[in-house]
Amino acid sequence: MLIAAALAGSAPAGAASAQAVTAPVAEDFKPSSLNQPGQDYPQVNSQGHARFRIVAPAAQGVKVSLGLGGRGGTTLTKAPDGAWTGTTAGPLDEGFHYYRLTVDGGTFNDPGTLNFFGSRRWESGIEIPAKDADFYALKDVPHGHVQQVLFPSPSTGTQRRAFVYTPPGYEKNQSDRYPVLYLQHGWGEDETAWSNQGRANLILDNLIAAGKTRPFIIVMTYGMTNDVTPGRPGGLSSFDIRPFQTVLVKELIPYVDRQFRTLADQRHRAMAGLSMGGFETKLIVPANLDTFAYIGLFSGGSVSLEDVNKIPGFRDKIKLTFVSFGSRELEGGTMRGPPGVPPADPRANAEALKRAGLNSVFYVSPETGHEFQTWRRSLHEFAPLLFRD
Amino acid sequence: MLIAAALAGSAPAGAASAQAVTAPVAEDFKPSSLNQPGQDYPQVNSQGHARFRIVAPAAQGVKVSLGLGGRGGTTLTKAPDGAWTGTTAGPLDEGFHYYRLTVDGGTFNDPGTLNFFGSRRWESGIEIPAKDADFYALKDVPHGHVQQVLFPSPSTGTQRRAFVYTPPGYEKNQSDRYPVLYLQHGWGEDETAWSNQGRANLILDNLIAAGKTRPFIIVMTYGMTNDVTPGRPGGLSSFDIRPFQTVLVKELIPYVDRQFRTLADQRHRAMAGLSMGGFETKLIVPANLDTFAYIGLFSGGSVSLEDVNKIPGFRDKIKLTFVSFGSRELEGGTMRGPPGVPPADPRANAEALKRAGLNSVFYVSPETGHEFQTWRRSLHEFAPLLFRD
Repeated sequence: MLIAAALAGSAPAGAASAQAVTAPVAEDFKPSSLNQPGQDYPQVNSQGHARFRIVAPAAQGVKVSLGLGGRGGTTLTKAPDGAWTGTTAGPLDEGFHYYRLTVDGGTFNDPGTLNFFGSRRWESGIEIPAKDADFYALKDVPHGHVQQVLFPSPSTGTQRRAFVYTPPGYEKNQSDRYPVLYLQHGWGEDETAWSNQGRANLILDNLIAAGKTRPFIIVMTYGMTNDVTPGRPGGLSSFDIRPFQTVLVKELIPYVDRQFRTLADQRHRAMAGLSMGGFETKLIVPANLDTFAYIGLFSGGSVSLEDVNKIPGFRDKIKLTFVSFGSRELEGGTMRGPPGVPPADPRANAEALKRAGLNSVFYVSPETGHEFQTWRRSLHEFAPLLFRD
Repeated sequence: MLIAAALAGSAPAGAASAQAVTAPVAEDFKPSSLNQPGQDYPQVNSQGHARFRIVAPAAQGVKVSLGLGGRGGTTLTKAPDGAWTGTTAGPLDEGFHYYRLTVDGGTFNDPGTLNFFGSRRWESGIEIPAKDADFYALKDVPHGHVQQVLFPSPSTGTQRRAFVYTPPGYEKNQSDRYPVLYLQHGWGEDETAWSNQGRANLILDNLIAAGKTRPFIIVMTYGMTNDVTPGRPGGLSSFDIRPFQTVLVKELIPYVDRQFRTLADQRHRAMAGLSMGGFETKLIVPANLDTFAYIGLFSGGSVSLEDVNKIPGFRDKIKLTFVSFGSRELEGGTMRGPPGVPPADPRANAEALKRAGLNSVFYVSPETGHEFQTWRRSLHEFAPLLFRD
């Protein structure tokens, strides 16, 4: 059922609330913060409507995949100046959304905005300003560094890439050692997602500046190894966790522990992931209880008491099980599963763990779906709970 | 005249030799190494021809900006399956080229390939395999890290971004200190160019692994400050070196010297740049002879003996003046200047410096123009000459 949640990721981009559709559209549109330099479009208004403008004078039709609940998208119309324009019928959810254009039957990106890797391709991105945007804003606080590392992976015969966030002070405090969170992206995304779309570095910078989180290192790497051909991400149907588990546990963790000043023991290591990355976390951590002490599943399934009871040592070794979802993923009170699979109730699971004496935290991101605003908020809730002893 | 050279950057993308046009096109096309995951097009053949395939069944016309000498590009034709295809009339120069599509009068990127920031926008990129590609290949050698840093810039009221390459061993050898090269991009590019298009990190990894270069740090930041509005890169007509000089010398260098284990003195600091970045280097280094000891101008003008004689201290302080061009930039034996400006002869300038007893190196990249293959090779020639005492 986790796979279904992951696969659903790219479809319902920014569900709109039905009632807002009928409100008049406020004419206070401003360029999206993710636009390329000097680009005026796409724009966003104070209600969360997005407006697009695509220059293609000879085109027969231009459509934007973003729109009302992701269904149908937004069809643009041709203005007298040859540009195609249109506004989403309803407001989009706050936060980051992927989208793409269909121009005369072909898939292209909006030349106005930056690209982000999702759905196995570099997609267009737009940012709907959120009321709580301050926690991931670029502010005048000390900043950690995000560095690209290329680590040898004998098991896959490749040099693999990871991004490593080192917290502010890491370079100066040469005798300090730090705990590490291994943080995974979702299906169709890659190791760039948590910094680019997720702003994980800024979330940590701000939490650390506010004294809310112990400074720690974050490591983000590509979570798929079943590439059919080099550079070709594999499908979920053929997914086997073991090759990635080998890369992570046998290759990347030792590399990070050699290259960085880590606290290289179980109680100073966490793993979390969004969607498919949560699925990976739930498979890898129980099989490696001497390696990780914290679990975070962001829109990536849940852990039941039955799961825990089946895993010897889980209760003693795992200091926190954190599970989160966007509220729209839980509509009707349960997590929607694929046809034929009984729906899981992640909140009931989390409460059962707590009643059984485990440290279990359940978080719901208000008015967001299977998208990055849910996962930014999840990281913001999860980070302060880590490495507290 | 440097400005003209810089501005010319985006126009002559991959000049083809006239005679090769008539050779039959070899049908051994393979996907470009810069394609997005799973994408078969664009492709490149053994002669350096590029072939494009764009799906847009209802389009009226699709053109690719890459082509014979950059003039006119390549017009695609519609295949029965609705895809637009075409092959460049001649081979392209070896190395990296920017390009873009025109679809029904609008500018888009090729959805098949990765994007690279150039010409003030994220452009499509293609790589023509070069005979000397080994020096910038990703190999099984120890790799340095490339890290994003956000540094405070009170003079511009912003948090600015730089990328910092730390060589292999930097993390482990906690008592070692390293020299630093400040390396600038060209006009229309940004601080991502030297790692993404230029492969500066891989060039250094390979040189260091071969024992040809002393390990050093490279710092790459955005070289323009005259943004008309935030995020809007300024034009060259309004360019003033002083604000960027303040950012570099008063803000970034002290930040790097605080955050990294640098050898923080003049003789362990170099500055180089491509095109506009060379122009900046030529302005900033002579005004800061107590800060830098090495100059590298890659397709970014040259230094004459007259220049040197006008700058008190240059002769004593500067340990190396390195000037390079692509051979196509020097066709006719001189660097082409704008109308009315006598052409400079950078080779004669370099030889005059040498005759006058200065350490002057002139390098010409064979069969390349104002493009990244020239600059990759220039860095590869320049790096071993740095910090040798």
